[in-house]
Amino acid sequence: MTDSAAAPDPGPAAETGVSRRRLLGTAGAAGATGLVLGAAGGAAAWAGTRTDPAALTTVGSTAVPFHRGDGGRHQAGITDPQQAHGHLVAFDLAPGAGRREAAALMRRWSALAGELMAGRPAADGDTGIALDAGPSSLTVTFGFGRTFFDRTSLVTARPVQLDPLPAFSADALDTKRSEGDLWVQIGADDALVAFHALRALQKAAGEAARVRWQMTGFNRSPGATAKPMTARNLMGQVDGTGNPKPSEPDFAQRVFVPSSADPAWMAGGSYAVFRRIRMLLDDWEKLSLGEQEKVIGRRKSDGAPLTGGTETTEPDLDATGADGKPVVPANAHARISAPEQNGGAAMLRRPFSFHDGIAADGTPDAGLLFVCWQADPLRGFVPVQRKLDRGDALSPFIRHEASGLFAVPGAPAAGEYVGQRLLEG
Amino acid sequence: MTDSAAAPDPGPAAETGVSRRRLLGTAGAAGATGLVLGAAGGAAAWAGTRTDPAALTTVGSTAVPFHRGDGGRHQAGITDPQQAHGHLVAFDLAPGAGRREAAALMRRWSALAGELMAGRPAADGDTGIALDAGPSSLTVTFGFGRTFFDRTSLVTARPVQLDPLPAFSADALDTKRSEGDLWVQIGADDALVAFHALRALQKAAGEAARVRWQMTGFNRSPGATAKPMTARNLMGQVDGTGNPKPSEPDFAQRVFVPSSADPAWMAGGSYAVFRRIRMLLDDWEKLSLGEQEKVIGRRKSDGAPLTGGTETTEPDLDATGADGKPVVPANAHARISAPEQNGGAAMLRRPFSFHDGIAADGTPDAGLLFVCWQADPLRGFVPVQRKLDRGDALSPFIRHEASGLFAVPGAPAAGEYVGQRLLEG
Repeated sequence: MTDSAAAPDPGPAAETGVSRRRLLGTAGAAGATGLVLGAAGGAAAWAGTRTDPAALTTVGSTAVPFHRGDGGRHQAGITDPQQAHGHLVAFDLAPGAGRREAAALMRRWSALAGELMAGRPAADGDTGIALDAGPSSLTVTFGFGRTFFDRTSLVTARPVQLDPLPAFSADALDTKRSEGDLWVQIGADDALVAFHALRALQKAAGEAARVRWQMTGFNRSPGATAKPMTARNLMGQVDGTGNPKPSEPDFAQRVFVPSSADPAWMAGGSYAVFRRIRMLLDDWEKLSLGEQEKVIGRRKSDGAPLTGGTETTEPDLDATGADGKPVVPANAHARISAPEQNGGAAMLRRPFSFHDGIAADGTPDAGLLFVCWQADPLRGFVPVQRKLDRGDALSPFIRHEASGLFAVPGAPAAGEYVGQRLLEG
Repeated sequence: MTDSAAAPDPGPAAETGVSRRRLLGTAGAAGATGLVLGAAGGAAAWAGTRTDPAALTTVGSTAVPFHRGDGGRHQAGITDPQQAHGHLVAFDLAPGAGRREAAALMRRWSALAGELMAGRPAADGDTGIALDAGPSSLTVTFGFGRTFFDRTSLVTARPVQLDPLPAFSADALDTKRSEGDLWVQIGADDALVAFHALRALQKAAGEAARVRWQMTGFNRSPGATAKPMTARNLMGQVDGTGNPKPSEPDFAQRVFVPSSADPAWMAGGSYAVFRRIRMLLDDWEKLSLGEQEKVIGRRKSDGAPLTGGTETTEPDLDATGADGKPVVPANAHARISAPEQNGGAAMLRRPFSFHDGIAADGTPDAGLLFVCWQADPLRGFVPVQRKLDRGDALSPFIRHEASGLFAVPGAPAAGEYVGQRLLEG
């Protein structure tokens, strides 16, 4: 085990010699209108695509830089294209570990993430699991939970944005699989590369922190569709249409913390809301296609609103059918989650599907590891989820089983580690 | 739910218009020498490769034929290249269901598998989960367990090859996750395509059968390595070097049941041994690189024997070092599992890695969903596992947690269903 007091210097900036095509390719991301599955439910951002033949030849070789140079950019794994495999892991600091051990841990983890994201083995006893494979678009993203600040005597530096999320009536939260002092999001286009990173980060935690919970998810494989498509979730719905686009003028304002914000150490960062959203697939699949489409308010085949057009057409929420009733029902998910129904609330959703086999009751333990990113949860996740919580037709088919809220600082400059401005501020 | 008495005709042969490049590409498969992880342990066949840039453009569009035309060929999912995602599922016939219900079920499942493998939706209430994606090399393979023959009053047609496997001292088998009346192996290069097939097959089981156990696994993604490579397992070892090659003269004899065999309904079929092999990774990763290499008898970096050469060089089992001891230790995995040490026993290993999060004791619940294929388990899996069970240095780091043995008939001809010659014989 690595000694928790040891704090090796971070390696050279990982962007050296690294392809940035993935990162730069992000700008074309996501869709345009309003599906917010589960609200707080689903919606695979699947931002960007690697389904064009040229890009496919770089599935393994593509590397995402860890250090961003100017120190003001955001960490990897937020606007980067969604990968095919992911792990979400929460750690709690070990009894007796405080600010000093946390700083050493973040220094070790940052150095390690830089190496792994560049496709290099861990400096200290690499397991070899990722040997042969390229970096495969690996991203490692670090965040701090509310309890971290108590454990490290840094309560005065805690952002108000980490105040606990309100309770929702549909919540059935398992506290053991919720929250945590530290949070790590791992994504890669190869399952062994992702697993390798998970094991290496666990090992590097040493005696300083222990795993609180860990979950595994997936998205569509690069090349599985003939052309770029918005993702589908395990209910079979096109999911991610409504994600904000980096090209929109208020994208950065909605997703990232401005440099003028308080606390200053969060400049360039973002707040991540995580929800494990179980889909009650046995119930859902008993509905007819027409019933499912009324629940969502969109066609299953192509995600177009029931009022017509294509996936990116705005729904006509005032349209009525021959029976005088709204074509998009009053409680349809697409209506309730539409941005114009929520004061323009927006968040960047970037989830993974999950499938953990069969639950004790015989139903599939499957659904969405929902992750959304916003400058302020009270203007992103919370208002949308409140609205959905009161009247979404989708609610009977989903269950929020775990939750987390994490402060994700901006990217470290070369030579810095994630959270350094907090821990040494 | 589908009525279990209904038995729709199978659709047209799925190979119509389907690319056979994957199937034909199989001939170049696998490696040459003797690593048989777990013996019975590991070894990803990863037979063939799709890592060349041209092949990568067909990740989604590649289809594997379900019907093979002449009725004498083997089912898909045995010699086809290993996919990135897999599910193994065992079903038990429902109380009261017998031969008639089993025949109707196999007819429904065969028709469904043909549609799905061709990239078409299920005829009856498709969930939509795989919409947009191509067939993504989906294979669905069906087998019968020992208990199936009791349940269907077909005991006289049961092959002796389904006699229970012997007990091994390293077994810690969970009967609830072992065996089963029916077994389905699903593989695809897209996780949603694989999940879609799993759900569709479960739904098509209707009232005739219920899931006994289900497991999910993975292999390296197409394109993650720069060139074709033998797979690695979660211990980081090159794994699959010793797999028999289709180009070897006795390949078919070792893997497939000959047309002259008894019972006749198994002509062209194969016997699958399944083992859930847990890897005790926390213990394994405490070993130094040198210690790990002595356990295996091969270099971790490239899989070459400790006596030198490359991955495909035969180990020099007689070589001694300066200390007079064998370079490949007496209990090294590569020595004990070498074919020449086991009367030439050979099986085609085609496993998936698995990772089901963290077990109750805090260790990773990860390892290998070992699947091997042979004409006769008593000349394939059993002698190798017996040998390993007595003295393999790898044994302290693995645990066999579940087991299954299944008779997998040959491919159905167009218009036939899998097992028809058994169930209507």
